[in-house]
Amino acid sequence: MRAGVFGATGYTGRELVRLLAAHPEVRLAFRTGSADGHLKHELGLEQDADAYFLALPHGISAEYAARLRRERPGAVVVDLSGDLRLSTADDYRTWYGHDHKAPELLGTAPYGLTEIYRDRVRGARLVSNPGCYATSALLPLVPLLRLGLVEPDDVLIDAKSGATGAGRTLREDLLFCEVDGDFSAYAPGRAHRHVPEMEGVLGERTGRTITLTFCPHLLPVKRGILSAIYAKPRRPAAEIAAALAEFYAGEPFVRVVAKPPRLSEVERTNLCLMSVHEAAPGRLVVFAALDNLVKGAAGQAIQNLNVALGLPEAAGLPVVA
Amino acid sequence: MRAGVFGATGYTGRELVRLLAAHPEVRLAFRTGSADGHLKHELGLEQDADAYFLALPHGISAEYAARLRRERPGAVVVDLSGDLRLSTADDYRTWYGHDHKAPELLGTAPYGLTEIYRDRVRGARLVSNPGCYATSALLPLVPLLRLGLVEPDDVLIDAKSGATGAGRTLREDLLFCEVDGDFSAYAPGRAHRHVPEMEGVLGERTGRTITLTFCPHLLPVKRGILSAIYAKPRRPAAEIAAALAEFYAGEPFVRVVAKPPRLSEVERTNLCLMSVHEAAPGRLVVFAALDNLVKGAAGQAIQNLNVALGLPEAAGLPVVA
Amino acid sequence: MRAGVFGATGYTGRELVRLLAAHPEVRLAFRTGSADGHLKHELGLEQDADAYFLALPHGISAEYAARLRRERPGAVVVDLSGDLRLSTADDYRTWYGHDHKAPELLGTAPYGLTEIYRDRVRGARLVSNPGCYATSALLPLVPLLRLGLVEPDDVLIDAKSGATGAGRTLREDLLFCEVDGDFSAYAPGRAHRHVPEMEGVLGERTGRTITLTFCPHLLPVKRGILSAIYAKPRRPAAEIAAALAEFYAGEPFVRVVAKPPRLSEVERTNLCLMSVHEAAPGRLVVFAALDNLVKGAAGQAIQNLNVALGLPEAAGLPVVA
Amino acid sequence: MRAGVFGATGYTGRELVRLLAAHPEVRLAFRTGSADGHLKHELGLEQDADAYFLALPHGISAEYAARLRRERPGAVVVDLSGDLRLSTADDYRTWYGHDHKAPELLGTAPYGLTEIYRDRVRGARLVSNPGCYATSALLPLVPLLRLGLVEPDDVLIDAKSGATGAGRTLREDLLFCEVDGDFSAYAPGRAHRHVPEMEGVLGERTGRTITLTFCPHLLPVKRGILSAIYAKPRRPAAEIAAALAEFYAGEPFVRVVAKPPRLSEVERTNLCLMSVHEAAPGRLVVFAALDNLVKGAAGQAIQNLNVALGLPEAAGLPVVA
Repeated sequence: MRAGVFGATGYTGRELVRLLAAHPEVRLAFRTGSADGHLKHELGLEQDADAYFLALPHGISAEYAARLRRERPGAVVVDLSGDLRLSTADDYRTWYGHDHKAPELLGTAPYGLTEIYRDRVRGARLVSNPGCYATSALLPLVPLLRLGLVEPDDVLIDAKSGATGAGRTLREDLLFCEVDGDFSAYAPGRAHRHVPEMEGVLGERTGRTITLTFCPHLLPVKRGILSAIYAKPRRPAAEIAAALAEFYAGEPFVRVVAKPPRLSEVERTNLCLMSVHEAAPGRLVVFAALDNLVKGAAGQAIQNLNVALGLPEAAGLPVVA
Repeated sequence: MRAGVFGATGYTGRELVRLLAAHPEVRLAFRTGSADGHLKHELGLEQDADAYFLALPHGISAEYAARLRRERPGAVVVDLSGDLRLSTADDYRTWYGHDHKAPELLGTAPYGLTEIYRDRVRGARLVSNPGCYATSALLPLVPLLRLGLVEPDDVLIDAKSGATGAGRTLREDLLFCEVDGDFSAYAPGRAHRHVPEMEGVLGERTGRTITLTFCPHLLPVKRGILSAIYAKPRRPAAEIAAALAEFYAGEPFVRVVAKPPRLSEVERTNLCLMSVHEAAPGRLVVFAALDNLVKGAAGQAIQNLNVALGLPEAAGLPVVA
Repeated sequence: MRAGVFGATGYTGRELVRLLAAHPEVRLAFRTGSADGHLKHELGLEQDADAYFLALPHGISAEYAARLRRERPGAVVVDLSGDLRLSTADDYRTWYGHDHKAPELLGTAPYGLTEIYRDRVRGARLVSNPGCYATSALLPLVPLLRLGLVEPDDVLIDAKSGATGAGRTLREDLLFCEVDGDFSAYAPGRAHRHVPEMEGVLGERTGRTITLTFCPHLLPVKRGILSAIYAKPRRPAAEIAAALAEFYAGEPFVRVVAKPPRLSEVERTNLCLMSVHEAAPGRLVVFAALDNLVKGAAGQAIQNLNVALGLPEAAGLPVVA
Repeated sequence: MRAGVFGATGYTGRELVRLLAAHPEVRLAFRTGSADGHLKHELGLEQDADAYFLALPHGISAEYAARLRRERPGAVVVDLSGDLRLSTADDYRTWYGHDHKAPELLGTAPYGLTEIYRDRVRGARLVSNPGCYATSALLPLVPLLRLGLVEPDDVLIDAKSGATGAGRTLREDLLFCEVDGDFSAYAPGRAHRHVPEMEGVLGERTGRTITLTFCPHLLPVKRGILSAIYAKPRRPAAEIAAALAEFYAGEPFVRVVAKPPRLSEVERTNLCLMSVHEAAPGRLVVFAALDNLVKGAAGQAIQNLNVALGLPEAAGLPVVA
């Protein structure tokens, strides 16, 4: 199989190129981007491939998705931007600040949280790859809420991400001398674009409206997300841990572990590790760790491609950190 | 004034030495420790000084505090260990795992959270310097709870600290190659020794039992603590921010700011910066940032010394990061 | 005394503000820059002060220096840019790529390598503050060459600097995710602007032409320069170390130490530490460490101001790391 | 093929495990070490495998090499320690401070600098894997000296390594708070154990005695070595670059590049990148970059195993950073 990468000079796109180099069944057909040896994005549309990854800025990505659906109808397209994650053009405008460029695609692409929506991804020709924070929160929260293990009305996520999560953007606050040795919260008050994405999935999975508290922080590391998810438990922590483990039994990439997971345990792997603890009487905490560029982006995109194409789901996806 | 530092080769002791070098009214009389140019601890007892800082491991510190109280009754002793922070020998044994070495001192040393207990510190000859996490949580929580600004029964602290907080200890998990680029939680489930210290102060200040959720994390930075404190507000966030600002009006080291504070804004200063935000409907978040080695340890110890000796409270304590 | 800082939002300017906050005899009169609470640069010219620090980009700095010399003739101006470091307008054009904006100033400002040119700085009203790399290389090399301790024709400097040395510039290669965990050389082949500055001083001090090999590297740290200076010795290493120590005897900021100095030993101090070793038979190595923002910029600028104004030379300049 | 790893809890051993997980033709048979799920070292001797990697401390490693040679004569043993790198027991005692535990093995194991000694490695049953610094210096220096491109009597190496190079050792100077933000030289004066290893190879390859200047530094990064190699050129830099490129033409892992290589370009790959520049008139500099855990240790060990077993040489070895 041949796959092309649009946007291969960004951090997510580079990670796709790196992971595809070790994929036993998919090889890189072309890549577009701003640096030497890359095609211009438009030229990517002329390339023949079995799959196309869109690691482009939001807005632009939807345009390419629409073009590829029309011009390469047999190919699989995985969109790693946020363009296809919300349900309606109104929601999109509210959260992304501009009109959607291809509203006809909304609702047509399964949300590629692979372990949860595998059946929808199988055979799909357009997949919307989840956000990195959203993946770290939803993998524990979908079973916790769907199985009724915690109260649905008091879920709080204190999340921390490495700086690649902000992309390769020329912003003063992303300079080395601003990030190194530093740490801070940002976008409190449900201001982050992953909030509607998470609440949308939780609503769809549970049939009820879920309102999350979500506070992200910028870690002085390149890769990795650790989310601390606090909720009111309906069962003892040990039973909840066992239920989560059972829910994910047989999954190659999701594991329930005993000790709070470290970023280094998931670095450059497609793993999501989670641990469950009684934080206080009547208060549960679940820690979920993943690599934002792998399970939070490029790795899950390849996992979705594998599923969509009927390849072995774990092909090319590391699990040893 | 002359001050001696016991334990000047640890990170806190070194910080005391560094800060005293710029103090306009106190000079370093001696220092003990394990490296070149330091006295052995016992020899410190023979040194004449106006003040003694104990930056020693818990257990040992109480012994030196007791000796100094007897042998240097006119001098000020500031204990930076946890030995004098809890009220009873039973509590101490529970949390520190061994008998208290000088139980007669328990209850005799004011808890040096200076802005809160300044009146008790004034003129004291023995001061118990607060824990670093405790300082970051109590500076916002004491007024929040005492003024009835938040519900007292649902306070959650997700705290993150730099690695100097663990001391200069030969532990494999503190090696550069284990900490750099990594991040994780530890001691969930109210297992950290600062929990009883915080709950003790909050109980004393509010007259009621407070049970905290407290989850600390290890940041890949040398200095700094950022605590995210979540609670149910009784007033709008803006009013709560204004009330906090009024509570600390005139204080040189505690400031309420508009944006989530960064560690770099407090690095090597004696500041504690805090910001207040509506995290979600019915959920408040307060971010509090300080340098664990300064306001969280050596700086606050000097602040207490200044108050105890009647010197200008801010002498020798930086506020520009 | 009142001092103003032009360019107080850059890393050097911020360091000036931080250091002046602890200066016992000079206080900050105003600051200009791009952020809140700063004047626009032009407004700085209207401010009355005893001293003006120019932490501005090259080109711009010379303009302000010329204006201040005319409009504030009694004040001391310390220029931290490279505008006044070279001798001729031709050299300046060659190395800085544009015409000099105030060529009449060239040759009028002593080169403020304080320990070497103290007599010229005393009473000066315009001082050219040295480059950071240049300071780290010249402090050892001036006595080594002037005292004939090493061969003059085979001096090689392998230098490493923290990222603040590049300034607060929006360049992709200065993003956190590009610098963290990374390391590389740049500008080999005598391409760095500090080369003519170093060779100019060495020529002036020794009366002969010195050609240096100079290779700088970018360290993944915020502060600090370590230069490894290799040369052919004319005397045993121990004698050379003793001669250097004697040359700098009584200096508060330059010290010859036994072990290779660490950046952490000079961080946030005005120190330059150097050690001397036989690297191989017939090959000497001198390691010189300083903080590029302090002794390499803002600290040395204040040292020069102290000397120019007749204040105690070490006032406000930390020596404890 | 099945391979076992002795010492799989150290950084080198862990890297072997990580790389073998992606090797298409070799799988991990067992691993020994101090943590959960590892065998004790002695039990490793009882395991049947086609290949054994020794990632053990020096001294111990030779014992296991000797045992494996006797008890598993058909298997390939790759020793990653320094035990088999020097030629004589006397040299070993001088540099390692104790008697050699299996002197009969000295001289029997080819030095696995694969690109240089490939013919000797082919079919070997015992391979001595090179040191990390040595690999970074020898890959450029062997052709430079053998082809007469530089003067042999004035070669100077200023080398910088990440902290994994020191191993997972409980030393205070390797704590996060000692390494982060810091940088220093160590072991100047030809005191590093890789000096005799490098000089031995260069002597063997050129037929003359080479005396190197070698100064290593500790970088505040986990992985990577960058060596700056200075020498007197006999040809223009461009010709030397071309000759090096020709020497390594067709090699999958050694590349001559135009710009000074960055550690990030070789991170987690088996690449060694080098660039060649005129540093000054009559002075050449070659920068060589590799990942000390991959091409400098585990990767080259697998490369040697591939060659020894007749597998494709590049199997399982990444080249995309």
